[in-house]
Amino acid sequence: MKARVTVTLKNGVLDPQGKAIEGALRSLGVEGVESVRQGKMFEVEVATSDPERAQTLLKEACERLLANTVVENYSIELL
Amino acid sequence: MKARVTVTLKNGVLDPQGKAIEGALRSLGVEGVESVRQGKMFEVEVATSDPERAQTLLKEACERLLANTVVENYSIELL
Repeated sequence: MKARVTVTLKNGVLDPQGKAIEGALRSLGVEGVESVRQGKMFEVEVATSDPERAQTLLKEACERLLANTVVENYSIELL
Repeated sequence: MKARVTVTLKNGVLDPQGKAIEGALRSLGVEGVESVRQGKMFEVEVATSDPERAQTLLKEACERLLANTVVENYSIELL
């Protein structure tokens, strides 16, 4: 079973990487971008076809490794 | 208008970062993850409410900065 895990910075957490991208787009002449925030995305293949089991497994992976839950949110989407 | 841009490695392109995550999950005792591929995600706010204009703008941003189209695919999702 495939899943997509998205990890984003919580609101209010500064994102210097996103700011740098905004600046770079402006210098390149790409007009009309107001703000950019960068996150991470993981495409995960899990060895189960039970959605509940997959959800539990991915939640554990997020809590323990993929996301820093102090400053980041994560969302799990089964495909 | 908000949009989400996802950049992923093309099929067949090696992903050492994903492999490292797989290994780390295994060492942490998270069993049942078969493979991981890492991508990037950008939350972009564009200064237009016209979906067509937003799509064009984001396509330009992807082609010129956000994605390396030699080894990466991108997808644009208007929210």
